[in-house]
Amino acid sequence: MDLLKGSHIPQLRHCWYVAAWSHEVPVGKLHGITIIGQPVLIYRKQDGTLTAMADQCCHRHAQLSRGRLEGDDVRCMYHGLKYNSSGHCIEIPGQDDIPERFCVRTYAVQEADSWIWVWMGEHDKADHALIPSATGPDDPRYHMRSGHIDYQANYLLVNDNLTDFSHIAFVHENSFARGTKDTAVLQPRVQLLERGIRITRWNRNQPSRHNDPLHPVADVFMTYDFLVPGVLLMFTGSYPAGTAEAVQLGSPGEREPFAATFTSQAVTPLTANTSRYFFCWGPRSEEHKANPQIIENLWQLAHIAFEEDRQIIEAQQRNINLNTNAPVLSITHDRGPTMMRKVIERLHAAETGQQ
Amino acid sequence: MDLLKGSHIPQLRHCWYVAAWSHEVPVGKLHGITIIGQPVLIYRKQDGTLTAMADQCCHRHAQLSRGRLEGDDVRCMYHGLKYNSSGHCIEIPGQDDIPERFCVRTYAVQEADSWIWVWMGEHDKADHALIPSATGPDDPRYHMRSGHIDYQANYLLVNDNLTDFSHIAFVHENSFARGTKDTAVLQPRVQLLERGIRITRWNRNQPSRHNDPLHPVADVFMTYDFLVPGVLLMFTGSYPAGTAEAVQLGSPGEREPFAATFTSQAVTPLTANTSRYFFCWGPRSEEHKANPQIIENLWQLAHIAFEEDRQIIEAQQRNINLNTNAPVLSITHDRGPTMMRKVIERLHAAETGQQ
Amino acid sequence: MDLLKGSHIPQLRHCWYVAAWSHEVPVGKLHGITIIGQPVLIYRKQDGTLTAMADQCCHRHAQLSRGRLEGDDVRCMYHGLKYNSSGHCIEIPGQDDIPERFCVRTYAVQEADSWIWVWMGEHDKADHALIPSATGPDDPRYHMRSGHIDYQANYLLVNDNLTDFSHIAFVHENSFARGTKDTAVLQPRVQLLERGIRITRWNRNQPSRHNDPLHPVADVFMTYDFLVPGVLLMFTGSYPAGTAEAVQLGSPGEREPFAATFTSQAVTPLTANTSRYFFCWGPRSEEHKANPQIIENLWQLAHIAFEEDRQIIEAQQRNINLNTNAPVLSITHDRGPTMMRKVIERLHAAETGQQ
Repeated sequence: MDLLKGSHIPQLRHCWYVAAWSHEVPVGKLHGITIIGQPVLIYRKQDGTLTAMADQCCHRHAQLSRGRLEGDDVRCMYHGLKYNSSGHCIEIPGQDDIPERFCVRTYAVQEADSWIWVWMGEHDKADHALIPSATGPDDPRYHMRSGHIDYQANYLLVNDNLTDFSHIAFVHENSFARGTKDTAVLQPRVQLLERGIRITRWNRNQPSRHNDPLHPVADVFMTYDFLVPGVLLMFTGSYPAGTAEAVQLGSPGEREPFAATFTSQAVTPLTANTSRYFFCWGPRSEEHKANPQIIENLWQLAHIAFEEDRQIIEAQQRNINLNTNAPVLSITHDRGPTMMRKVIERLHAAETGQQ
Repeated sequence: MDLLKGSHIPQLRHCWYVAAWSHEVPVGKLHGITIIGQPVLIYRKQDGTLTAMADQCCHRHAQLSRGRLEGDDVRCMYHGLKYNSSGHCIEIPGQDDIPERFCVRTYAVQEADSWIWVWMGEHDKADHALIPSATGPDDPRYHMRSGHIDYQANYLLVNDNLTDFSHIAFVHENSFARGTKDTAVLQPRVQLLERGIRITRWNRNQPSRHNDPLHPVADVFMTYDFLVPGVLLMFTGSYPAGTAEAVQLGSPGEREPFAATFTSQAVTPLTANTSRYFFCWGPRSEEHKANPQIIENLWQLAHIAFEEDRQIIEAQQRNINLNTNAPVLSITHDRGPTMMRKVIERLHAAETGQQ
Repeated sequence: MDLLKGSHIPQLRHCWYVAAWSHEVPVGKLHGITIIGQPVLIYRKQDGTLTAMADQCCHRHAQLSRGRLEGDDVRCMYHGLKYNSSGHCIEIPGQDDIPERFCVRTYAVQEADSWIWVWMGEHDKADHALIPSATGPDDPRYHMRSGHIDYQANYLLVNDNLTDFSHIAFVHENSFARGTKDTAVLQPRVQLLERGIRITRWNRNQPSRHNDPLHPVADVFMTYDFLVPGVLLMFTGSYPAGTAEAVQLGSPGEREPFAATFTSQAVTPLTANTSRYFFCWGPRSEEHKANPQIIENLWQLAHIAFEEDRQIIEAQQRNINLNTNAPVLSITHDRGPTMMRKVIERLHAAETGQQ
């Protein structure tokens, strides 16, 4: 197994990528981002609906995101070509005739769960049913905060990280794992999905994070889907000790956790060597109301932990860049990362074969 | 059309490049600059005349510009080899015999109009008649200031910028174009020259920049030659409204403008991805005497505007580096850039065929 | 001669490289360094003995130097794989079976003369007799200080510098050479050794550095071995004027210098374009006791001089990177550098042929 096969790193085109948090693209702003090496411009029309197109004027490849929004249109501020929200050039200063070919490619774009999603394949092949159903900061059931950080690393290395939480006991021993029992020996349940995997685990008899005198220890149930290209959607519920055994380590079903959080995360490849990592996290709204400190604690923890991930993954990337020819060996805990990489490779082969 | 054809970007050798402003190379200073990827050393002999040679000792390729001037000679301060101003090694510490091959190539160099010009082809093929006749800060007719900035971009992108002023209404809407009428719809006259192009335009009924109660509006005549490799020489004259029509949009001839400026600019390719942009600008001396504030205004404007150019062009270069395979389309306003690129390609083909 | 033959720069594997000063690797610390492009981890077992292995977990290539020392073992803090000091994986969290192939390569490592040496070839071919016999800060005969700086340059350029001291009169005219007579015309004696060269020279009638009223001038004897990959071991003794002639410019033999210093230095290639330069320097202990200011003076001088070297060599590397095709010519003073490069090439050819 190669960790990163040079230029053969599979990057899906028939896939929805998180391009921004909804609030990062208010009406009136041009938002530029590079996704799988393609410059993409996103903005809102005056009615608030989104449009996405190549962030590259068809004339001389200047960035449209440095341009000017004029109503629902965008004007390149290099030589003034104006595009409507369908990517058609509708004005060329100094020229009356505007040939049909004066346009930039558009991308299907959709807003859902506080995220702006862009389909990187052909616009007309965009399948809206493939957008993962996330839980974002706009969901009234949770009180969340959101953010993003950039990695100097290929997105697959971040995916590997997120599909194997055995790293938590090590990378995050002083953040996420502080005060918990070592869970790295437990294998989670990993199930194959059509466009990803589902990972489920019980961590029993964990010291409670909430200083809750009623629940000094908890059985913690974590379940998340990890979907192409790198979307993580995780529910974590704390149940009275003994629950895990009572449900035979299966789903807690209708039982009500005494505490719960949700986190949605997304890894977006910018270029072959850089990635953007979006995340939100928070407790249920009623818990937030009862104890507004919870979100502060979670967020402080996340701030430290995500930096811990970044440090180790960027160093891993630098090691990989040395190209030492040392073998890459897999362990039992790699079931998640391995299965997820196979999903990406299968989908990549399928869409490449289609072309 | 490719914006930048990778390693096939035409770089002329049989051509004079601006290497520095005269004042940047006082007697006693060694000035190093890389031109079309070649390290060049320039200095003055004690009589003030210039010499130019490879900035690369023939021994171990140390930079001679880090050396020591000894009279008219330069000593490499790595191992002490000493060169005369003809590039011949005249001293090798610890060695009496100095073989003929101990030398560095020299370049023809000439000072004209406050610029130091270097011919990047064979020294003996240097054709001094090919040095553009610029107007520099030493010209008593004008009161100019000079400067330079460096670009993280290929020189052709800067040339494109300077051969199509339709960008002024957009890139410089808050600097050069502030208070003027949108001129981007007007086509200038573009004429082919032997080693460049000539661009001429009238902008009619422009609000005056000079708060001149006698001339609240002006017909502004701009004419410039743009010559290989990237030398811009522009006269701008403000005439009473109606003049443009009176001369049938042709040359104002002997008519005296009530205000005028001149600017000389030069783009020098350092490497394939970096360029240096030299510029001077100023009003006629009599206008400066009458109103010393003019030059302050112009210079403040230029400072902002050149930074605007740099921002958009460096972003354009980064977009081009993404290599997206998107087509590059031309518009009517590209006559200048297209014609100029063809001049460079023609001259490049000619000199390459000669070899 | 090519100064640097691109990817064909000879890098010895059957060779001891200085990886650190002893004090840089205290018990309890994981020390990571890249040597000839290989990531290497060094640490001490609890008994103080050293171990060295690939700084690259066999699982996903994370840096073990970001891991945790557990007794004599090191745990990768990405997924928790634990290695003993022989590089064998002895624990895989979540997995009972540990296949034999779970290991990282180890390197022979030895501590000598305050340096930690690593053999970059096969561990079992390590020949301890090949470790140069240096004089380090632990030697009671001298009072030394130590340090290191990193170069953005290939190690061969630093080697060239250190095998030809004719550069001192030029690069270091204001530091090492200040107050001395120009010595660049004198040829040192250069002898070929099995794995390096020996360079010897007398500098006669040098103004004394020590403000010693008894010895206003001195005959200074310098002798050093320069050994693969880039180890310099130099004794400098100051003798009464006339000594050089008395010994016919040969070895001073049993004569006692009135002042002496020793310096040990080592150049280690990190990657093809970066190097680490280790150095220590100091007077004899009795001289230090008599005048503790000497070491301050030496060290201040070294600080300036090593920066002078770094400046000129990094600029030389940038010039080389321009790839100008200019020839590289040798002079008489190149006997040292040329002989040393040939030693490296001979040893490189021998070990490559052995494979």
